[in-house]
Amino acid sequence: MTVKLYDLAGANPAVRFSPYCWRVKMALAHKGLDVETIAWRFTDKDELAFSGQGLVPVLRDGDMVVHDSWAIAEYLDKTYPDRPALMDGEQGRALANFARHYAQNVLGSTISKAIIADIFHVLDPKDRTYFRESREKRIGAKLEAFQISREETLAQMTQALSPLRALLKDQPFVNGKRPAFADYCVFGAFMWARNTSSAKIVEDGDAVWEWRERMLDLFDGLARKSPSAAA
Amino acid sequence: MTVKLYDLAGANPAVRFSPYCWRVKMALAHKGLDVETIAWRFTDKDELAFSGQGLVPVLRDGDMVVHDSWAIAEYLDKTYPDRPALMDGEQGRALANFARHYAQNVLGSTISKAIIADIFHVLDPKDRTYFRESREKRIGAKLEAFQISREETLAQMTQALSPLRALLKDQPFVNGKRPAFADYCVFGAFMWARNTSSAKIVEDGDAVWEWRERMLDLFDGLARKSPSAAA
Repeated sequence: MTVKLYDLAGANPAVRFSPYCWRVKMALAHKGLDVETIAWRFTDKDELAFSGQGLVPVLRDGDMVVHDSWAIAEYLDKTYPDRPALMDGEQGRALANFARHYAQNVLGSTISKAIIADIFHVLDPKDRTYFRESREKRIGAKLEAFQISREETLAQMTQALSPLRALLKDQPFVNGKRPAFADYCVFGAFMWARNTSSAKIVEDGDAVWEWRERMLDLFDGLARKSPSAAA
Repeated sequence: MTVKLYDLAGANPAVRFSPYCWRVKMALAHKGLDVETIAWRFTDKDELAFSGQGLVPVLRDGDMVVHDSWAIAEYLDKTYPDRPALMDGEQGRALANFARHYAQNVLGSTISKAIIADIFHVLDPKDRTYFRESREKRIGAKLEAFQISREETLAQMTQALSPLRALLKDQPFVNGKRPAFADYCVFGAFMWARNTSSAKIVEDGDAVWEWRERMLDLFDGLARKSPSAAA
């Protein structure tokens, strides 16, 4: 049984950098499902018309169509209950929800400042005008002016990572002894940076760095093998 | 069956302001255990000699002595498994651990800047020299110089609360539909401020404010009834 996933790609179709799509690719591997990914660009809105909206990830599983990484994780646990749970029980669901909001509101906002101009250079040329116009409107600045220095990135990330670092000194994964959807939510933010930028967002040897290494190794190095567009 | 809890108190013995003791008081109420609290001050180190260390919370349950709020929560779940769980399963434990590190590293560090000089005035006179010397050594500044303005407090807290706010827009408690130990870990930080200071740390009507109201109402208003030393 192979599912299909629409997956954000760059000019190089092998570069797949969406943090939300990474959550789903890790979740599918966790469930042991084979996936065929379809390279998709921001401006390919028509290709997603069947999903009733215009953003990835979009999952096709037989006749079922599900969009949004959170909805996909819930769908997978409901549809494949005999495979390892992504969110275990009410408290496991709450953990994943806390982790995804931390990933978006704390990590994502800092990482976006660190890589936004780098992302522009990774994009397929047909996406560049869309990306620049939509993001510059949102941030109220030119991409190049908004992006912070490598030194500032590491300083801000060190601060943003403080609760995650403390957690990972106590336990090997965000989810505890074994990784699950809370880990994939946080890890997506790291893959977004890794696939698009040379910005260093965590110091070597940090507890978070050690965790990221473990995550890169999961599922036969699924994430580690993914090409980066960074120089 | 009544357990005993050594609980940090101010000059007014009814003022009980330790964030770690609040975690335990809420946890004991969650378990439906009656508790006799014993007012304790920072300099009463000898009174805790039986516990092998010098910090509260310390719980006495019959012949058992347990210190440290996390160890106490684990002890309560293990000893009273038929009562509502504080941490449900491996992922529930991970959630509580993430919440406590967020409470300490993110909320606690901001709140400490907002209230540290206020705490000094709440203390029993015999604790004041100890508190001033130990805290000023740690922060490298006078308490009064370190404490930030009320305006700066609200700005920094609004930022620090962002992942919690997003979470609480989705679900009524940190733990999901019902409160448990992850909620009590975060709530302890709010009680620390409430019992010692008039600093406003969350805007009325914010999703976090609404959650704090629900927490203050739990267990017949256990926390709401607790006296504040703030002017």
